[in-house]
Amino acid sequence: MPAREVPVPLRWSDMDAYGHVNNVQHLRLLEEARISAFRTWSGEATSDSPVRSGTIVARNEVEYLVPLKFQHEPVTVRLWISRHSGASFDLGYEVRGRAQDAPDDGLRADAEGWVVYARAESTVVLVDLDTGRPRRLTPAESEMFAALDGPPVELRRRARERAARG
Amino acid sequence: MPAREVPVPLRWSDMDAYGHVNNVQHLRLLEEARISAFRTWSGEATSDSPVRSGTIVARNEVEYLVPLKFQHEPVTVRLWISRHSGASFDLGYEVRGRAQDAPDDGLRADAEGWVVYARAESTVVLVDLDTGRPRRLTPAESEMFAALDGPPVELRRRARERAARG
Amino acid sequence: MPAREVPVPLRWSDMDAYGHVNNVQHLRLLEEARISAFRTWSGEATSDSPVRSGTIVARNEVEYLVPLKFQHEPVTVRLWISRHSGASFDLGYEVRGRAQDAPDDGLRADAEGWVVYARAESTVVLVDLDTGRPRRLTPAESEMFAALDGPPVELRRRARERAARG
Amino acid sequence: MPAREVPVPLRWSDMDAYGHVNNVQHLRLLEEARISAFRTWSGEATSDSPVRSGTIVARNEVEYLVPLKFQHEPVTVRLWISRHSGASFDLGYEVRGRAQDAPDDGLRADAEGWVVYARAESTVVLVDLDTGRPRRLTPAESEMFAALDGPPVELRRRARERAARG
Repeated sequence: MPAREVPVPLRWSDMDAYGHVNNVQHLRLLEEARISAFRTWSGEATSDSPVRSGTIVARNEVEYLVPLKFQHEPVTVRLWISRHSGASFDLGYEVRGRAQDAPDDGLRADAEGWVVYARAESTVVLVDLDTGRPRRLTPAESEMFAALDGPPVELRRRARERAARG
Repeated sequence: MPAREVPVPLRWSDMDAYGHVNNVQHLRLLEEARISAFRTWSGEATSDSPVRSGTIVARNEVEYLVPLKFQHEPVTVRLWISRHSGASFDLGYEVRGRAQDAPDDGLRADAEGWVVYARAESTVVLVDLDTGRPRRLTPAESEMFAALDGPPVELRRRARERAARG
Repeated sequence: MPAREVPVPLRWSDMDAYGHVNNVQHLRLLEEARISAFRTWSGEATSDSPVRSGTIVARNEVEYLVPLKFQHEPVTVRLWISRHSGASFDLGYEVRGRAQDAPDDGLRADAEGWVVYARAESTVVLVDLDTGRPRRLTPAESEMFAALDGPPVELRRRARERAARG
Repeated sequence: MPAREVPVPLRWSDMDAYGHVNNVQHLRLLEEARISAFRTWSGEATSDSPVRSGTIVARNEVEYLVPLKFQHEPVTVRLWISRHSGASFDLGYEVRGRAQDAPDDGLRADAEGWVVYARAESTVVLVDLDTGRPRRLTPAESEMFAALDGPPVELRRRARERAARG
């Protein structure tokens, strides 16, 4: 299973005036998970790892499924490579938590007790740190990414568009 | 042209360690613009305006076109209704600024001097504040939204998908 | 009167789960006011202005007097130099707003309609940008600061300590 | 020694454009530590614990001793009760980290390898959640706080004031 699971602690200040983790702060959680995952991938990879060189986030897409309330236990962000091409790659994410860690009762959990709060995808571009310009993946990076390959993110937007196309 | 233009002041703290307005903070700017626009729409509308009742952000999608550096002049967020159905609507956004307000030289501006830093779209669901459940647009709201109608957001993702489908 | 008044727009996200501008975010407002004021002082001053060189915040002290709720109108931060020595200076601040701009009724305002939400003080150290080390004020800076001189901040902590010493 | 030690994970976004944990974000770290500590104290205490009822931060004071850079290991916040009276109490804090966890070489550490990045103090007022008004500590709370008593925070401001008084 190529996805990685990164525990991300919430902060009380992630809540907004509605008492939920704010929709923008969800992206902050994804950022933390991504930086943590890149660090590990870097360690596992050769010295010309994408993580050693610069990366730019070119696109974020996130769907909120269940309101996330502040909890003392970290949430778990699952990450995987959902697409990679010569010069960029997509990261897929799921923000999940154990139903038992949530302050709310009655959250619908899967058979293993997980609640999926959000699904998301980022497009990341690799940048040459010397020139500041986009650069292509090296063969070693392409190989590493192939090993981390996962499916497209199950965004509702995609299902809706498929349905609309008939 | 039904789009609204909302000036949104940056904060120095919107910058991250790379010295750019952080990709997550872009969504904070959109949130500010949305709250400001809702307030005006509310004032222009009848008392059963969607803005008086609760709203939930169900989805965010943002594409970053040009790195945005901290500037003392506000950026301008253009907003419009890019889709509306019975129970939800999409907001289209463009984050723009005058080339002359940017600390960087050489930004490619359009004929009127604007640089587009990001394009984005949010799906907003209307919620009944008493029950906490999604509710349908009232006829008055549908009418108001029709008057604010604009085109789909020109996301590169969409152009890419159209090209892939041939 | 040497104090400057800087309008600082609030953001909806400055509120925490209690629905007030969070106590930490108050310091964010002070940061914005300080950066804005430094910019003006710089423009008014000679080219060896403290603002052109680096500054480090060495100390923050803030007292919260009245809970600040989100309002669409900016608050006003008054700033002045409350102390300056050879290598550092203190900034005094008051976070104020017009009672009429607050969503709450019944706030006690002064004769001119102002509510004081917080008082604060920062100690700022001047740093040589080349060496990264603290440096002394130049004669031109000392002169400029003398012109911006104001009284010590009326912190309740100080009144309490004076009372305790008898 | 009644002080508690709370590990607080940093976020990459705690850094500002200077590449250090921003001075305002330090207070965010203290907030996290305080909420975590209150939770434990609550668990150890009787059901009329201060933590079950509302608290308001009335004052923050923080001194920055060593620039804190982003590190993957959590920092440690030491907290204790540095003063308590009938209706409020002061929390003392030290933000510390292991020299080996810092990206910088050459940080001066104490004999046990700790670097102290900041010292701080908050005044917290207890509030009756029903009326919203300040309330006095119960005898059980006073007893609990006595057990958590620690010395005044060694703020440089205090040493300076003592010296000035001769």
